Amino acid sequence: MIREGGRSPGAVVMARLDALADFTETPGQLTRLYLTPEHKAAALQVRVWMEEAGMTARMDAVGNVVGRYEGATPDARALLLGSHIDTVRNAGKHDGNLGVVAAIQAVAELRAQGLRLPFAIEVLAFGDEEGVRFPVTLTGSRTVAGVLDVGALDAEDAQGVSVREALQRFGCNPFEIHKVPRRKDEVLGYVEVHIEQGPVLEAEGLPVGVVTAIAGASRYTVDVAGVAGHAGTVPMRLRRDALTAASEMVLAVERAARDTEDLVATVGRIEALPGAVNVIPSGARFTLDVRSPTDAVRREALAQLERAFREIAHRRNVAARLERSYDEAAAVCAPWLIQQLEAAVTRCGVRPRRLPSGAGHDGLAMVALCPIAMLFVRCEGGISHNPAESITEEDADVAVRVLVDFLRHFQPQPH
Amino acid sequence: MIREGGRSPGAVVMARLDALADFTETPGQLTRLYLTPEHKAAALQVRVWMEEAGMTARMDAVGNVVGRYEGATPDARALLLGSHIDTVRNAGKHDGNLGVVAAIQAVAELRAQGLRLPFAIEVLAFGDEEGVRFPVTLTGSRTVAGVLDVGALDAEDAQGVSVREALQRFGCNPFEIHKVPRRKDEVLGYVEVHIEQGPVLEAEGLPVGVVTAIAGASRYTVDVAGVAGHAGTVPMRLRRDALTAASEMVLAVERAARDTEDLVATVGRIEALPGAVNVIPSGARFTLDVRSPTDAVRREALAQLERAFREIAHRRNVAARLERSYDEAAAVCAPWLIQQLEAAVTRCGVRPRRLPSGAGHDGLAMVALCPIAMLFVRCEGGISHNPAESITEEDADVAVRVLVDFLRHFQPQPH
Repeated sequence: MIREGGRSPGAVVMARLDALADFTETPGQLTRLYLTPEHKAAALQVRVWMEEAGMTARMDAVGNVVGRYEGATPDARALLLGSHIDTVRNAGKHDGNLGVVAAIQAVAELRAQGLRLPFAIEVLAFGDEEGVRFPVTLTGSRTVAGVLDVGALDAEDAQGVSVREALQRFGCNPFEIHKVPRRKDEVLGYVEVHIEQGPVLEAEGLPVGVVTAIAGASRYTVDVAGVAGHAGTVPMRLRRDALTAASEMVLAVERAARDTEDLVATVGRIEALPGAVNVIPSGARFTLDVRSPTDAVRREALAQLERAFREIAHRRNVAARLERSYDEAAAVCAPWLIQQLEAAVTRCGVRPRRLPSGAGHDGLAMVALCPIAMLFVRCEGGISHNPAESITEEDADVAVRVLVDFLRHFQPQPH
Repeated sequence: MIREGGRSPGAVVMARLDALADFTETPGQLTRLYLTPEHKAAALQVRVWMEEAGMTARMDAVGNVVGRYEGATPDARALLLGSHIDTVRNAGKHDGNLGVVAAIQAVAELRAQGLRLPFAIEVLAFGDEEGVRFPVTLTGSRTVAGVLDVGALDAEDAQGVSVREALQRFGCNPFEIHKVPRRKDEVLGYVEVHIEQGPVLEAEGLPVGVVTAIAGASRYTVDVAGVAGHAGTVPMRLRRDALTAASEMVLAVERAARDTEDLVATVGRIEALPGAVNVIPSGARFTLDVRSPTDAVRREALAQLERAFREIAHRRNVAARLERSYDEAAAVCAPWLIQQLEAAVTRCGVRPRRLPSGAGHDGLAMVALCPIAMLFVRCEGGISHNPAESITEEDADVAVRVLVDFLRHFQPQPH
């Protein structure tokens, strides 16, 4: 697959990941949030690459970039590929971006080989998978899948800018969002390449693996209300300190997840109010993120944590209130797509390995539209959401080769 | 002491506390930080009241308002009275402000009685006792006492504005700060009226009490460094979560203070980094405030907490670093001043009660210049640093009467 005088697909992918990493709000770090100027610049770059790969490309009304590589016949049903181009703060280069760049490169390879398939291919670069800027997430893929929550456009970032306002500033027309959802009868499935973000493939010496299911996830904001007081004069036994109560809850979250198989739980953000060095906190607010590939495990853990929070609040004479900001059931990958991906992996000389995804992905939304599948790529130390995130050029090359092979052999869902 | 046709001193004090509470950055709440426009407006109001009470008044180069009521002879040595007019965020009306307003009112009473004493009286309205805006505190009283830390003017607020810059914007000339310190031979002592901020006087049914010592205090910023990771994919046992480690430390602080007599300890501020709902925190930062009227107790507790933090960090494979931002030894009140205050309390018909101060006060700085004493006023529920802070007009009246009586009988320190 190495073209004469050219670079390998893996080398192209790695160079493009480096190039995308320059679209950041923080020089020297990668931070690219949904509907920011950096996101816009990255989206325009992606559109150029799509066009260079022989696709017609456009931006839709929620900021997704959509490239289409026509099949042998016009208006053929489309197999969707893609991932997202937003990032967490101080992110790695590969999360999301790899899936977009690898899909474009797979199309470029087909075109370089002069291949038109019996179906069209569309590459989607979603804009909001991480959910960092707004208290909503998957805005791009949910809209495409036709399952965007009512009210999601009213969600506001920390500066009070709504998604709707941000879309307008981005150059999108929120009044055209109804044109974004795809019809089930025009799509064949959704396949995403993504770094594993975990340690399994590395431990087994495998460059890629095939995903069985995407973990379900719930997110909450927890507000603890105590009573403020002077840090020097209120005796310890008379305090109703919201932060010490919250600290106990943070440790209860950790303990519950440690004690439960197939469960992870994280407090990523916390603050104390009023937030002065010499004032006993009257309030504490923290986020809670709970995930499991098994929905029942997640639901039971949440019930257990609610009980634990209530007990801590009662014992400490403070109040605790949980508000759910996100709740997504686990998404199971389609067995027939898993089999076709595994066949491609095998043909490329790699032992097929199935594994679940602890991280959420756009497939969580896309599964409402069509069958989904994912190909995981090994990443160093399982590290992601971190500048130390790393994959090799060789593994990127395998991923593109598997994807091209999969596309060449792809058969629509048997009826 | 009720003037014909006029209001009682207590009523004047209460009305002025209400008036001062309108100088706030947040309508409906009281927040007045050092060197803000609200502080400037409050300072100008205080200057007017000083002049109305027969004092010459000025603002010094660090933003203190200084009023002088001359004695029977010109250039007499001065007994200093006062407190501070900055507040915490969402504060009560009485903390600090009461001491300034009560001192002005005491001078107004002397003047109304046509009294000139053998010594001058100066009323000081300090601007930075709470230390909320900048990571330094007692800037006003330390400068007057001649013990301002080198570098304090370079301290920056959250917006990166230094004390020096803020002074200039406030209308002060930082190049004239060397003129602020007072000579020991020109002052006789420093006496402050302040709300108790604790529950002792209320429990004993006493309107006022005489302070024996101001607790020493240490403040730290604690930085915990872990490793960021994806909230969905890193197994619990492989995490090096900075926030769960910090939460354990917060609880260790609480436990140490609960288990130690004459010690209080508070974590008032905390944050997790990078601070995203779906990222395992790579960092956590919190403040620590530890106080005791006995310096040895405080030092031993700090050593114990450092050991506890080190153990937690080691066990969790994270790093912890403590940086001290403040350290002030306990300040003992002068026995001869305590005796004269107690005599005044007794003459006003109140049983004298001695008690320590858990809160810090400007006396912590002033003790470097001259003997200090404090008169505490009962406050409801011991609540302070809170909008629910409350005192009665009757108690304010007693405080002014005690202060006037004390001044009329005041004898300089025996040699």
